[in-house]
Amino acid sequence: MSKTNDGNFFEDFALGQEIIHATPLTVSGADQAFYTALYGSRYAVYSADTFAQSMGLPGAPLEDLLAFHVVFGKTVPDISLNAVANLGYAEGRFLQPVYPGDTLSSSSQVIGLKENSNGKTGVVYVRSSGFNQHGKKVMEYTRWVMVNKRDHGAPAPETVVPQLAQAVSASDLVVPEGLHAKNYQPALAGSDYFFGDYEIGEKISHVDGMTIEEAEHQMATRLFQNTAKVHFDQHAQKDTRFGRRLIYGGHIISLARALSFNGLGNACMMLAINAGRHVAPTFAGDTIYAWSEILDMQELNNDFGALRIRLVALKNANPNDLLLKDEDGAYDPSVVLDFDYWALIPKDKKQ
Amino acid sequence: MSKTNDGNFFEDFALGQEIIHATPLTVSGADQAFYTALYGSRYAVYSADTFAQSMGLPGAPLEDLLAFHVVFGKTVPDISLNAVANLGYAEGRFLQPVYPGDTLSSSSQVIGLKENSNGKTGVVYVRSSGFNQHGKKVMEYTRWVMVNKRDHGAPAPETVVPQLAQAVSASDLVVPEGLHAKNYQPALAGSDYFFGDYEIGEKISHVDGMTIEEAEHQMATRLFQNTAKVHFDQHAQKDTRFGRRLIYGGHIISLARALSFNGLGNACMMLAINAGRHVAPTFAGDTIYAWSEILDMQELNNDFGALRIRLVALKNANPNDLLLKDEDGAYDPSVVLDFDYWALIPKDKKQ
Amino acid sequence: MSKTNDGNFFEDFALGQEIIHATPLTVSGADQAFYTALYGSRYAVYSADTFAQSMGLPGAPLEDLLAFHVVFGKTVPDISLNAVANLGYAEGRFLQPVYPGDTLSSSSQVIGLKENSNGKTGVVYVRSSGFNQHGKKVMEYTRWVMVNKRDHGAPAPETVVPQLAQAVSASDLVVPEGLHAKNYQPALAGSDYFFGDYEIGEKISHVDGMTIEEAEHQMATRLFQNTAKVHFDQHAQKDTRFGRRLIYGGHIISLARALSFNGLGNACMMLAINAGRHVAPTFAGDTIYAWSEILDMQELNNDFGALRIRLVALKNANPNDLLLKDEDGAYDPSVVLDFDYWALIPKDKKQ
Repeated sequence: MSKTNDGNFFEDFALGQEIIHATPLTVSGADQAFYTALYGSRYAVYSADTFAQSMGLPGAPLEDLLAFHVVFGKTVPDISLNAVANLGYAEGRFLQPVYPGDTLSSSSQVIGLKENSNGKTGVVYVRSSGFNQHGKKVMEYTRWVMVNKRDHGAPAPETVVPQLAQAVSASDLVVPEGLHAKNYQPALAGSDYFFGDYEIGEKISHVDGMTIEEAEHQMATRLFQNTAKVHFDQHAQKDTRFGRRLIYGGHIISLARALSFNGLGNACMMLAINAGRHVAPTFAGDTIYAWSEILDMQELNNDFGALRIRLVALKNANPNDLLLKDEDGAYDPSVVLDFDYWALIPKDKKQ
Repeated sequence: MSKTNDGNFFEDFALGQEIIHATPLTVSGADQAFYTALYGSRYAVYSADTFAQSMGLPGAPLEDLLAFHVVFGKTVPDISLNAVANLGYAEGRFLQPVYPGDTLSSSSQVIGLKENSNGKTGVVYVRSSGFNQHGKKVMEYTRWVMVNKRDHGAPAPETVVPQLAQAVSASDLVVPEGLHAKNYQPALAGSDYFFGDYEIGEKISHVDGMTIEEAEHQMATRLFQNTAKVHFDQHAQKDTRFGRRLIYGGHIISLARALSFNGLGNACMMLAINAGRHVAPTFAGDTIYAWSEILDMQELNNDFGALRIRLVALKNANPNDLLLKDEDGAYDPSVVLDFDYWALIPKDKKQ
Repeated sequence: MSKTNDGNFFEDFALGQEIIHATPLTVSGADQAFYTALYGSRYAVYSADTFAQSMGLPGAPLEDLLAFHVVFGKTVPDISLNAVANLGYAEGRFLQPVYPGDTLSSSSQVIGLKENSNGKTGVVYVRSSGFNQHGKKVMEYTRWVMVNKRDHGAPAPETVVPQLAQAVSASDLVVPEGLHAKNYQPALAGSDYFFGDYEIGEKISHVDGMTIEEAEHQMATRLFQNTAKVHFDQHAQKDTRFGRRLIYGGHIISLARALSFNGLGNACMMLAINAGRHVAPTFAGDTIYAWSEILDMQELNNDFGALRIRLVALKNANPNDLLLKDEDGAYDPSVVLDFDYWALIPKDKKQ
């Protein structure tokens, strides 16, 4: 019998199954330096210990999406090695900052199963969680993937599709303990716009673009210990319908979020992932642009509000055109990501 | 009104204006590891805690030019987002070593303004400074850039062009506190040549070459949180006269300086930047070579002298040919950088 | 006289000569993050402090091969700058884990010399050692390289060819002090196969492939402060018989070893390098695959055994075919590495 991991196929998953994922990772300032080098992130709270301390934190945490990618990466060998498509995310929450020196591990529970009518694939819904070395949950999210069956004749499981919220309720958002905006310095943060300056329905083009190189997305995806083969193996990919290595969808989320600093510089911490769809594949050489729409606004406490933001990533198309869907509801061919998240933002300028 | 930063245009600058730049950065050994991975630097004092300690420092500081790039990067969104050209550097001094854990921030003062006769652009002179978390100035430098006007009809400011020194005076060079050469080990440093072994007028070909990849210069420039669009956006750049992403000029300075280890291995710390000109653009695929000329020599104290070095970077041309200018004073087409700096070097071999 | 290092030529080496190599390096978690980003390594003991601590170590050491590359890199300017070929490795042992904060330095002794009959080159055998800042030897290995003569008329030295063991004896393998498997968690390690599950002669295809990019191998090789010109200088390489930059052989060892996690996930620490041959050059764009053969098995103590593993790396060829040599003993054209090492593996599942 082979000792290599060929991943789980659809019939290997059972409702309620708990999966402990391999390879805990101790993160450090090096991971944050990689994140900056890969995406150009400039949110001050993640960039400088001094700025984070001025907001009541012990030091700069690791970027929220970096922690997400690490937690996500660990789930790949068990959940999505045989995935045909990553269909969606929901009910994601960041529960606790991750600091240099923390060790992250992941586990998942199967919360839904639905075989497709073709009998060859099925959809698996998992609830995944990331933990630190103290056993505290640092984040959780649901995702669902379409997975191949190993044996097309295997019987279909009972169909269970979980009820998933359209968006995380504002009352469920977790503001990091001790965080305040009493000494928030907009000049250092790089933006003069606060909670009260935004309005629901407002759309913001983030102007700048980033062209992706093979070495960049490969290094990123390996740093996250994500083992999905399609990102790394050109010799195998050349015979697929794309003929190319596919870029990890999370790479696009991070690029788009980093680009969105230009217009949302004070929307500094991601609190929740409401939904996310990788609308089209991306490849090395594509230039990624982004625009955002404010979907909702909620007060969190005296110091902070939350913006619910639709973040749209485009490839090789002008973000000022705010492209999304045509009149029939089909995505514009340039749209590669339609992502919905909550971000924390100070309520008003203190100085 | 747009919430995105479109940068300052020529008419937005006022003489004497002070600008606090955004995004302080806590640097770490990871930044130094990136520096080594990107440029192949081998100066022992920056490479090993033990070697730095043998010279009287608490541990290995971050490479001087790495600190420069970080400080410089912060100035870009305010100073040079609408720059047509980075014209020059002068009066740069390294005042204090930067250590892992330090948080760097930057500010600039406008010290000169001169509208060009075409009425479409002007030259802005700024004096920029980098500070650590204790508020101590770690470096300062002057640069001048040609910046677009937003409104060609905007009135020209009074012309003020600062007097800039040809070179930093040797008496203004700052030797890091406590630094000595009592236990300096040439075998570990990798060079047998000391202050007294060089002479004014001496030229040294640094022999080796480094070919630049897109992923490398993009990662470097993002690590420095430098947001200049021309380095990252191939989709936009394809319609420019170059058709390519331009490489950050500082990337070339660092490559050339790292190459110059081979011949100047004991000229281990940069003390000042006297002048610098990015003579021609570089692109991915170019191979960078370097040669140096000793312009001046000054004793600093019992242990150290300073070499004033012209560092010339070439693309795709043999450094042994020491190419610089033709008989009419025009730069050879292979010259991409003409840089003038002071470096500290131990006076003589101790063992 | 030139101040640049043109490296040692064959006639510069003398039997018994001791060479202290330049540029000690303080390693950190950043180096390990790079290693993960470059190779996708997932051995839990190197990935997580918590996992390493569960095995009795103070924290996660740096990956064994990362320490090897750093020690090796320092030898290049003295030993192999004028090498025509890196012929082999033998008698390599990892003697002590390397931790973040350690400073590594290297030295070598010339243990054999043999001029080739053409009078233009010779083979140099060196015994190289790596030390930490406490002067403790962390590893040692022998390698032999073919080096050019500077002066073809220089007299040949007496031929001395050292006796080298076919493999390190199991009794000479060093298990890190305090290491145990009492709390070893296979779910976190990512493999259910232990010492007793393998058998001599067993062959394992590691299935996955990694395509190499120029930026990746250049950054890796510079991180290791390896100065061999052929890896970096496309302008010079375009006129060689390959026309391309050559990839550092150690890059292939690390890629193959990381790929071999899939099938050997619990063979978590490399204890010895018995032999190694870079059978054919590799270039950017090549996709590397790997397969392994269990050559020997030895018990080490109550908790651990050792697997002697032949690790074969292929380029652009299916590892399931287990390609090695044809019936005449010639390597298959797809084979790029034939490597022989000992790895430590827990004896049996504890939970």
